Amino acid sequence: MNHHYTLTISCPDRVGIIAAVAGFIAQHGGFIVEANYHTEQDRFFMRQEIRADSLPFDAGEFCRRFAPLADKFAMNWQLADSAQNKRLVILVSRQDHCLDDLLYRWRTKELRVDIPCVISNHEDLRSFVAWHGIPFIHVDMRDKAAAFERIAALFEQYRGDTMVLARFMQILPPALCQRYPGRIINIHHSFLPSFVGAKPYHQAYLRGVKLIGATCHFVTDELDAGPIIEQDTVRIDHGDTVDDLVRYGRDIEKSVLARGLRYHVENRVLVCGNKTVVFK
Amino acid sequence: MNHHYTLTISCPDRVGIIAAVAGFIAQHGGFIVEANYHTEQDRFFMRQEIRADSLPFDAGEFCRRFAPLADKFAMNWQLADSAQNKRLVILVSRQDHCLDDLLYRWRTKELRVDIPCVISNHEDLRSFVAWHGIPFIHVDMRDKAAAFERIAALFEQYRGDTMVLARFMQILPPALCQRYPGRIINIHHSFLPSFVGAKPYHQAYLRGVKLIGATCHFVTDELDAGPIIEQDTVRIDHGDTVDDLVRYGRDIEKSVLARGLRYHVENRVLVCGNKTVVFK
Amino acid sequence: MNHHYTLTISCPDRVGIIAAVAGFIAQHGGFIVEANYHTEQDRFFMRQEIRADSLPFDAGEFCRRFAPLADKFAMNWQLADSAQNKRLVILVSRQDHCLDDLLYRWRTKELRVDIPCVISNHEDLRSFVAWHGIPFIHVDMRDKAAAFERIAALFEQYRGDTMVLARFMQILPPALCQRYPGRIINIHHSFLPSFVGAKPYHQAYLRGVKLIGATCHFVTDELDAGPIIEQDTVRIDHGDTVDDLVRYGRDIEKSVLARGLRYHVENRVLVCGNKTVVFK
Amino acid sequence: MNHHYTLTISCPDRVGIIAAVAGFIAQHGGFIVEANYHTEQDRFFMRQEIRADSLPFDAGEFCRRFAPLADKFAMNWQLADSAQNKRLVILVSRQDHCLDDLLYRWRTKELRVDIPCVISNHEDLRSFVAWHGIPFIHVDMRDKAAAFERIAALFEQYRGDTMVLARFMQILPPALCQRYPGRIINIHHSFLPSFVGAKPYHQAYLRGVKLIGATCHFVTDELDAGPIIEQDTVRIDHGDTVDDLVRYGRDIEKSVLARGLRYHVENRVLVCGNKTVVFK
Repeated sequence: MNHHYTLTISCPDRVGIIAAVAGFIAQHGGFIVEANYHTEQDRFFMRQEIRADSLPFDAGEFCRRFAPLADKFAMNWQLADSAQNKRLVILVSRQDHCLDDLLYRWRTKELRVDIPCVISNHEDLRSFVAWHGIPFIHVDMRDKAAAFERIAALFEQYRGDTMVLARFMQILPPALCQRYPGRIINIHHSFLPSFVGAKPYHQAYLRGVKLIGATCHFVTDELDAGPIIEQDTVRIDHGDTVDDLVRYGRDIEKSVLARGLRYHVENRVLVCGNKTVVFK
Repeated sequence: MNHHYTLTISCPDRVGIIAAVAGFIAQHGGFIVEANYHTEQDRFFMRQEIRADSLPFDAGEFCRRFAPLADKFAMNWQLADSAQNKRLVILVSRQDHCLDDLLYRWRTKELRVDIPCVISNHEDLRSFVAWHGIPFIHVDMRDKAAAFERIAALFEQYRGDTMVLARFMQILPPALCQRYPGRIINIHHSFLPSFVGAKPYHQAYLRGVKLIGATCHFVTDELDAGPIIEQDTVRIDHGDTVDDLVRYGRDIEKSVLARGLRYHVENRVLVCGNKTVVFK
Repeated sequence: MNHHYTLTISCPDRVGIIAAVAGFIAQHGGFIVEANYHTEQDRFFMRQEIRADSLPFDAGEFCRRFAPLADKFAMNWQLADSAQNKRLVILVSRQDHCLDDLLYRWRTKELRVDIPCVISNHEDLRSFVAWHGIPFIHVDMRDKAAAFERIAALFEQYRGDTMVLARFMQILPPALCQRYPGRIINIHHSFLPSFVGAKPYHQAYLRGVKLIGATCHFVTDELDAGPIIEQDTVRIDHGDTVDDLVRYGRDIEKSVLARGLRYHVENRVLVCGNKTVVFK
Repeated sequence: MNHHYTLTISCPDRVGIIAAVAGFIAQHGGFIVEANYHTEQDRFFMRQEIRADSLPFDAGEFCRRFAPLADKFAMNWQLADSAQNKRLVILVSRQDHCLDDLLYRWRTKELRVDIPCVISNHEDLRSFVAWHGIPFIHVDMRDKAAAFERIAALFEQYRGDTMVLARFMQILPPALCQRYPGRIINIHHSFLPSFVGAKPYHQAYLRGVKLIGATCHFVTDELDAGPIIEQDTVRIDHGDTVDDLVRYGRDIEKSVLARGLRYHVENRVLVCGNKTVVFK
């Protein structure tokens, strides 16, 4: 993976945006590795990946020079530097399949992120996390308000970019959700919007569906209703018990979360109302 | 496809059912082509396919001889004869992709059924149905009560075994649903239980799901809530419009309906509460 | 579907191509509906969909004005006008599932193409094609050389853009393949490169694979070895006979061919050596 | 998971086998949890799962009493006791995604096996295996003959039931393959029979396929040609590099191997010529 900058933009749609942005990049010799566009409801979304070594200046200077153009088009925009890993603070309860999967992808550098700490309301996973050399922090949930204050404080202290609920079986308070829009990612163990809330595999079993699924989404203050980043399904049949569903579900949860997180850390996910644009 | 009988059974679970049934069949030299079992909530489900030419008697005599054994185990049971095609009465509105698909499978004998008539609340598809030599009957829906009475009468008159709602955009009255339990099959254009009712693709678009689906289910008096026979999903992305969803949906609707109907006409679907056992 | 132009380009990769093309379009007020890029082995591939009504001139004038820029970058390029349907000449033998599927998509305008004629080495499908009002032409294959000369002549006479082998069970002579590079599309009933040549389902059955597939590809003078446009697979199991494989295969063949053709007629497929770039 | 016995049988097909076996089980009060049958080329395959506590005797006595019936039908048969875990000896090189996945499933008891040791031709994975408390044995491959003798000796010493090649990048000598028919399982990183041998992702990239796959199969003395247990595929596109293929491949390899092994350890896989019957 070469050093590159990723420019993400959303702005009111009009003629000439691509020309202006591509013109700006070309004028400085910038080599575009990947470019994606999308228009929805009169709003334009754009992602450009530019090789860092093709530009005569660094990210800071890029931003200074790009700002006037951004202003002209009323852009919401960001420039991400691939040399700066995103910092994921992972929250987990007892189910560790997603955590295990993320730590594997982290330690093999498949997922280029930093994991400054893992937070849990149980002690079970301390040894496994510690083997990776990552701080493991237990938070007592008996006083929920205090617990979530502590979680927010830890997220700040460890300079987290994104909070990942990797099967964290606690509902975040609305204020916390609102504080970090687009920065808290959950994996829900159903194909949303079916089976919101508790025990989705049990609900799926009782309804007799023929496939089950998992959903990776941004957390908002409405339970399991935030913008969906990634989903997938797997076939089951009448012979499968709830335990079988849970087992199939583990595999699909971890792959959906891993894909969703990968899109997010590569700055491929732009929020558009209560939906996402995912530039793959 | 050789001539065979299909014996389907459900009864309270206990030791010795398979032995008793297999023993009965073996005692008469019956050659079992396929056998499936399932237990759920203390109830036992069973399907046996037996080569007709391996038995020394016909279906009627099989039933007479099997009855005492069935009584002993308190069985609900049926013997289907592959020489007797199931008769499907198809109801359709204007969207003809499912109808087109079913007629193709019928005329190429992939789906071994009779289609005594096609009923529609529009005239649009008359010519295509007529080309197949199948009666096309238009029913005026302005008086709904009269229309559904006529539909029920036509179903009886044409000796229908199963009523297939192949994108029939009318809600059947509860009394009609209750009159034919397990005999009315619908294709719903969403992955149920998500997006019940009208305009499911529009609902899916607004929710921003990353896959859409279709559901083949038995019709009960609760809308889109009957036992599910078959489902499937297909991936979409942010670039797809509602029209794209409708287009992808057509392909998945017709394949899900075709598979569900195939299971049904091969006597592979047994109802178990509000769920189905599908012996594939 | 609005009236639009699709500009497809391939050229040596260098800095500034996107800027130059987007700049040209913006300079004339062109509204870009969709844009895609790809670089492979120092070659750049590009597709732009532009709303026709946003430009002050027609397709001919676009081409005249664009030519100098295209020359400067040594582009292979084409401008397709959505108002001009591609003309598909379909060749078929006896298996009609792909033909049936294509004619359905054609008559419902899902696939925006013209089908000037259907050519077959059998008479079986005359009535069905005739019902659609499309000329059906029987070609006698006893003298193969003469037959293929006649096919090429018919393709010219009916001004075909693309020849579609929709389960045409004859191997085209190399000279014919070479005459129409990138213009003959075949559906092969296996997941290539497995099971080249005859009876792929039989080969798959004997090898004991757990999924079967289908491949839509451009025809070259090497059998089943041309650039692949689209593929898919479906799960089978040990209980499936060769006949079952053929049955599952029909569904996957027709959907793979339909998707591949759709990409092709929308000018989404660019050939790159023996591979394809498919801008979806 | 209750204590159960799994009876697997293959024998010449004839009338009365199911009745005889089910009759034997019923006669002793045996409660059948799951039963599957298959006929192929005049050979009958059968699997029965029986609750251990429903029988009045243990596995040894079951075998003694069943033997005469088995002889009468010329059965190949085995009775597996769920209380006896299968012992998997895992061989691995440097790529550890499959090993990581298997150890996770082992330590969470999702996969009910014993792993008496892990053998590798590299030292890289010692620490991770040691954390699990499993012996890690390095085998020097410079003298291949000696190395494979040592591997066979270790397999015996650790009383392995099955040798799992979890991305072991060495070709086993034919004599070793022949010594353990149906007991060596490999994961190959392509959708066989495509891309046999080295660098399958590279081969797939060059061929331009639109999906890649993985294959779990029994090892025989012909490279990558043994009976296939499980396969799967995943979609790629022109934008994916060989490195992307390798990355997607890791996920599919580990899930295909995990599923294949699960079928194997649950005695669901019966070899039938160069194919497998997999009773799911």
